[in-house]
Amino acid sequence: MRLKINSSNWSAGLPVAMLKKKTAVKIGVHTKERLELTTLKKNPKSISTILDIIESGLKDDEIQLSSEAKSKLGVKTGEGLEVKISSPPKSLDFIKEKLNGELLSDLKIKKIIQDIVENNLFESEIALFISAVYKNGMNFKETISLIEAFLSSGKSFTLKNKYVVDKHSIGGIPGNRTTPIVVSICAAAGLIFPKSSSRAITSAAGTADVIETLAKVDIPIEEVRKIISKTKACLVWGGSLGMVPADSKIISIEKELKIDSEALLLASIMSKKLAVGSKYILIDVPCGKNAKVTKGKAIKLKEKFEKLGRHFKLKLKVVLTNGDKPIGKGIGSVLEMIDVLAVLDPTKKGPKDLEKKSLFLAGEIFELTKKSKKGKGYGLAKTILDSGKAFNKFKEIIEAQSGKVVELKPSKYKKTIYSKKKGKILGINNKKLASLARFAGCPMDKYAGIYLHHNVGEKIEKGGLLITLYAESKSRLAEVVKYYKEKDIFTIA
Amino acid sequence: MRLKINSSNWSAGLPVAMLKKKTAVKIGVHTKERLELTTLKKNPKSISTILDIIESGLKDDEIQLSSEAKSKLGVKTGEGLEVKISSPPKSLDFIKEKLNGELLSDLKIKKIIQDIVENNLFESEIALFISAVYKNGMNFKETISLIEAFLSSGKSFTLKNKYVVDKHSIGGIPGNRTTPIVVSICAAAGLIFPKSSSRAITSAAGTADVIETLAKVDIPIEEVRKIISKTKACLVWGGSLGMVPADSKIISIEKELKIDSEALLLASIMSKKLAVGSKYILIDVPCGKNAKVTKGKAIKLKEKFEKLGRHFKLKLKVVLTNGDKPIGKGIGSVLEMIDVLAVLDPTKKGPKDLEKKSLFLAGEIFELTKKSKKGKGYGLAKTILDSGKAFNKFKEIIEAQSGKVVELKPSKYKKTIYSKKKGKILGINNKKLASLARFAGCPMDKYAGIYLHHNVGEKIEKGGLLITLYAESKSRLAEVVKYYKEKDIFTIA
Repeated sequence: MRLKINSSNWSAGLPVAMLKKKTAVKIGVHTKERLELTTLKKNPKSISTILDIIESGLKDDEIQLSSEAKSKLGVKTGEGLEVKISSPPKSLDFIKEKLNGELLSDLKIKKIIQDIVENNLFESEIALFISAVYKNGMNFKETISLIEAFLSSGKSFTLKNKYVVDKHSIGGIPGNRTTPIVVSICAAAGLIFPKSSSRAITSAAGTADVIETLAKVDIPIEEVRKIISKTKACLVWGGSLGMVPADSKIISIEKELKIDSEALLLASIMSKKLAVGSKYILIDVPCGKNAKVTKGKAIKLKEKFEKLGRHFKLKLKVVLTNGDKPIGKGIGSVLEMIDVLAVLDPTKKGPKDLEKKSLFLAGEIFELTKKSKKGKGYGLAKTILDSGKAFNKFKEIIEAQSGKVVELKPSKYKKTIYSKKKGKILGINNKKLASLARFAGCPMDKYAGIYLHHNVGEKIEKGGLLITLYAESKSRLAEVVKYYKEKDIFTIA
Repeated sequence: MRLKINSSNWSAGLPVAMLKKKTAVKIGVHTKERLELTTLKKNPKSISTILDIIESGLKDDEIQLSSEAKSKLGVKTGEGLEVKISSPPKSLDFIKEKLNGELLSDLKIKKIIQDIVENNLFESEIALFISAVYKNGMNFKETISLIEAFLSSGKSFTLKNKYVVDKHSIGGIPGNRTTPIVVSICAAAGLIFPKSSSRAITSAAGTADVIETLAKVDIPIEEVRKIISKTKACLVWGGSLGMVPADSKIISIEKELKIDSEALLLASIMSKKLAVGSKYILIDVPCGKNAKVTKGKAIKLKEKFEKLGRHFKLKLKVVLTNGDKPIGKGIGSVLEMIDVLAVLDPTKKGPKDLEKKSLFLAGEIFELTKKSKKGKGYGLAKTILDSGKAFNKFKEIIEAQSGKVVELKPSKYKKTIYSKKKGKILGINNKKLASLARFAGCPMDKYAGIYLHHNVGEKIEKGGLLITLYAESKSRLAEVVKYYKEKDIFTIA
């Protein structure tokens, strides 16, 4: 049916069309089904959109388009369109095949990813794909196809340098903010470190959130390239680069479903590292009873990463680290940045555990790239950190990202909790600690969070300092204190 | 903080509160977080709601409530409320425990279900519970707790009669509309059959959709009780009874996630049967390569159902039936009712496979209740069907539900497809057939659907009738035909 584009202008985040009920019935289409829209130009363009029904402000022969639909078609108000019902994309059949436990060919996986990027699949259909992969897994060949499909869905860097390095941690450990330190040490030694990080998904803060307390992290890819050629590194938010759009979409839905499939995790990490042209990759897998993965699962994950590394001809190393306790003192964007600055600044004393883990990771990268001999990486990293070169490099990166290194302070609304008994801290529940920080306002409230006075393994007196809670308002702080009291975060005996 | 209830009136489907950004900041709460609202009356009432932020139409000291929140609190426009941030419910911790693979106690499961019913858990949190149960399963004890929690969440019948029977099919087979026939035969023999059915979730039609072509199915529980005492049976939509509200909520989210966990399936079915006071239950599990479950899985499911039956002291029997091909001729609400009427009416010839399966199921129920001796149930069912008594009983039930048995016809927009080769139909893909019917407009378009001229195992000539497609508009029909051509539904060789 031929319809005219109505004058209203609205953004829906994706291509959407609205029709009156009467018009929809004539076309034979229901709300939330797919429409095919075709321009009337010489070289007609077609897109598929979702239909919504409205009853006011629209004539019988009109169609209302979201700005995303207009720009994708290249059309303006008043123009005509050919509108008909559109059948679901073939990729939906492939998703159902996966759900039934079938193996998907390279072509089928690429079609699914293409349809995700081009908005041809609804969110619920992407959720179905995620559930299917979660349920049935993917074999090595399928995982390779998925990585390649992710890669070809977006932009990529071509950093020609021989020494492009990267690191990634699978997360799950509160306060584990090694990235800014490792990047600064490595870049100070001449390695190229195009680091893109995520914002918090379920934790108190992501590296991007922490860097944002001092500098911009939402930077277009062209500018990031300039920052890297100037400073050898960057510390940006991955979402702004548009490098792996399929992955971003999948992650946002996984977040809602709160399921985390291994094949998608592998593909997500590998595609992002390949997109920036990394040749040396270090992967940190914190493991243990209190971490995201157990030791057994970590060993299997390590094997899979290494196999993928060999396939893509990368120098890739996986290190299993202790995931049973928090690292550093602060949890929350500003509190974590305070720790990072204290470690980087040679005139200050930062948390020893955060410093040691950062030096260990930087040392591993030095040995992987042969910047230092086996067993000498940690020493080289320590020399660079102690010399102040890493801190200078960090300042350089922050300034290149329109920021400045300044002293930070957490919120003034705070409450310190004291230990009710004398003993040794046998355990701190990582997940409950993260929930507490989230309830304090993290990651949205940058100045909120938790300061850990003592960590696992340390002795504490009755009445000794345990933690300090920070929130951005008095009333929220009161609720956080109440919430803390309901949780058994510490095991002291 | 003390706030005044604003005058606007809107329904959100659940309790929601709106504040200006400025007010929210003062309270220290973000959008989509929880608020605790407390009335200022002598016996104050508290509820927890989700917060949305709006910028217009609200003063600094005002709060806007959805009608659901107002009625739950029993408050009116202009009244004052004490408003503060509310911590997440304890059940969220229990859900996380399940996600971590822990076993949940009876009390914890009951708290989760209670919070689901009372809107204390967000949809994404319920989705997390579903994912956790899907991932880690539930043992027998947990499943029992879940069933009891479902049961105590809603209303229930207390039908005192000794012979209250029920049947349930796990579904997945197009056209398998045995329920109206089985219910009519059994009720004609004097059994009490309080049948509540679902609407279509992923199929072309649910039993409730099919009955709705002739009668009302959305009937309050008090009226259903009257219908049963008058006719010994009913054929209503389960959703209208409010018997297991927790289950309804969980099903609507499972539908979005498209995951189907066994423990939730078992609890869903068992609780609904227990809520109507059934003492004899027949469960039909169609199985095979082309069905929802394989033979192996069906045998395990059978064992679990039987164990639950023994626990709840029910006479429960599970029959495994052939799930490899469609049953009957019609697929879609009206087309399926036409088949049902042809089987029930002794003066007409209905599809033999539908008749046989219905007689088999009714016969099993007769033997289970000892209405007939072992091996004689099928014969008794056939006698009742052939005598016209079942048809009369069906008319009685339809009339009690404000309907009338009339002749039905599918849509006038139709297209018949002919076979391109001579041979034997070796297979029909059930899932693709259901997708085709959905694309034709089922279950929303009652007159749309598919008529199967030949089924699996039958011979067909080149140019012989294969199927007829029905849609409610000309343009939709054209797209359905195109969609059909892209699918390999039939295997003919």
